[in-house]
Amino acid sequence: MTASLEDLPLRDDLRGLAPYGAPQAPLPVALNVNENTHPVPQEVADDILDAIAIALREVNRYPDREFTALREGFADYLGHGLTADQIWAANGSNEVLQHLLQAFAGPGRTAFGFAPTYSMYPLLTRATGATWVAGVRGADFTIDAQDAASQISAASPDVVFLCAPNNPTGTPLTLDVIEAAYDATDGIVIVDEAYQEFAPHGTPSAVTLLPGRERLVVSRTMSKAFAFAGARVGYLAADPAVIDALRLVRLPYHLSALTQAAASAALRHASTMMRMVDDIREQRDRISATVEALGYRPYESWTNFVLFGGVEDPASTWKALYDRGVLIRDVGIPYHLRVTAGTADETTAFLDALASVGSAS
Amino acid sequence: MTASLEDLPLRDDLRGLAPYGAPQAPLPVALNVNENTHPVPQEVADDILDAIAIALREVNRYPDREFTALREGFADYLGHGLTADQIWAANGSNEVLQHLLQAFAGPGRTAFGFAPTYSMYPLLTRATGATWVAGVRGADFTIDAQDAASQISAASPDVVFLCAPNNPTGTPLTLDVIEAAYDATDGIVIVDEAYQEFAPHGTPSAVTLLPGRERLVVSRTMSKAFAFAGARVGYLAADPAVIDALRLVRLPYHLSALTQAAASAALRHASTMMRMVDDIREQRDRISATVEALGYRPYESWTNFVLFGGVEDPASTWKALYDRGVLIRDVGIPYHLRVTAGTADETTAFLDALASVGSAS
Repeated sequence: MTASLEDLPLRDDLRGLAPYGAPQAPLPVALNVNENTHPVPQEVADDILDAIAIALREVNRYPDREFTALREGFADYLGHGLTADQIWAANGSNEVLQHLLQAFAGPGRTAFGFAPTYSMYPLLTRATGATWVAGVRGADFTIDAQDAASQISAASPDVVFLCAPNNPTGTPLTLDVIEAAYDATDGIVIVDEAYQEFAPHGTPSAVTLLPGRERLVVSRTMSKAFAFAGARVGYLAADPAVIDALRLVRLPYHLSALTQAAASAALRHASTMMRMVDDIREQRDRISATVEALGYRPYESWTNFVLFGGVEDPASTWKALYDRGVLIRDVGIPYHLRVTAGTADETTAFLDALASVGSAS
Repeated sequence: MTASLEDLPLRDDLRGLAPYGAPQAPLPVALNVNENTHPVPQEVADDILDAIAIALREVNRYPDREFTALREGFADYLGHGLTADQIWAANGSNEVLQHLLQAFAGPGRTAFGFAPTYSMYPLLTRATGATWVAGVRGADFTIDAQDAASQISAASPDVVFLCAPNNPTGTPLTLDVIEAAYDATDGIVIVDEAYQEFAPHGTPSAVTLLPGRERLVVSRTMSKAFAFAGARVGYLAADPAVIDALRLVRLPYHLSALTQAAASAALRHASTMMRMVDDIREQRDRISATVEALGYRPYESWTNFVLFGGVEDPASTWKALYDRGVLIRDVGIPYHLRVTAGTADETTAFLDALASVGSAS
């Protein structure tokens, strides 16, 4: 006979919780978790494999605790004169954000974000013992600088999350909002640019705001633009003092030698990967145009997904698509659904399935 | 001009801390961090690489959040009728222990261990907001069942760490101590068997004690016996209810697809790796015999390292070895040093260097 959770001395604040995670189902067309549905091109995979083969020769030794070569790779990729001492990385951007919260939030402190936003922010915040405070967005999910500053000023948080562009809505966030948010707080301001590569060409990154702003952090991930969700690599750029703070909370050797090798190799193929990003951007715009033609209301998206409103009964539309072999995401916003831009074929499969479900009411 | 840590809103409890980590130095003979100094054999590395090549085909997708195949691999390796639902894994045993502390310790709770023991226990404990309580060992670093039970009962901790065999002393821990410790607490009892494969053949593992003990956890690592320190893979066996608890605190997709593939492939070569363990055990016993002949006092070791006493001035002996190209570890126990058993050549280099430094006083 096995025990149950109730038989164990679990922390009281965890009792009754369910594990986080999107429903997983082996459907032919999976457009539910904003993955890059394009496999890594063979020539890139070959180069990654060569790098891993070299790393395996010394895998009996602990990895470089400072992952210096990888940090140099990220600095080069981000550009704008960034150097390795301004870079941090971890096993997925969730762990990057966890490190930030461990250093700057935790028990007795608060973290703030404009809802609806990435659903992991409140979970990560509470997991470090801090309190989550939700701000509000306009009806179209945008935030303007003045409103952002006044909400942040009123909440007086220790950490501010700005998801730019925002998940799950796709909403752009302009640099003036980030500047205003920064000036409205003495806390750490995290600009989460997980989807930044999908913004229009020439859109400036928040990394351009780093000089002179030692409390500003710009986080990124390789999961999306680099088609590397399975490799778990998130990173950030910030003042070197922020990096010093994160060294205090990271587990020693948190980033494996294989992860370091794989990520460094993938970064060398950034231009190839960015061509894939262009394809995805096209499919995203096709989704927006077509769901609009079907009578739904797509929101402007600078990401690899589209949130659309005007869905009378999201659960039943979700199920109808599921039954047609297409998995998308009900993110819990009433009358809305979210779909990831896939390959051309996957996108067609989704659009055809949605059309067959019937137009918006 | 860059900022300093003092300019940032760092948590007060982190101010003044230094990052954890053994000094790293590129010496020809590095026997300081209990690595397995034998590289992974080529045929094993080839199989790992093939598995990673397959994983790379779908690295654009998030990994299996439940790492089912890997858990089955660990259950098979550990034997004793264990099943995948009793297994957990993470990026190094440090993360495994962190998950346990997040679920069962954290703010307002305490964790306990018999000092001197693995130096990460107090750090991991405090990082989750819990309090560390140190118990004491006998003069030869052993613990007996009755003493263990009475110290634990008096401390009334929420989590008990039993390092078996113990790091940094190498000391065996017998099952009767684990049974007594378990009966002396209502908390979680973690038996850390990081070095268990180096114990004498036939030594029973604490996994044999799992049936009927839902608060008992046996943690392991692939860093040592599997020469996989660079790959960062720790794991544990426990009641399925414990696994349910850990799902509440892990970051989603914490274990990359590459890590899962590499570890699963390495496990298929367990018998090859265990032959390497036999070699290391021989070198360890050679170290014990030779340092004793040199007048030092080695402690009985069931691990891949030897702690030896009778060192008049550990800092100066450490430096003399360093100057001879041999890196070992001053673990902070007065009059003691610790050395990892390397290959036959590395072990010879250490023993020759130690002999040239002069015998113990």
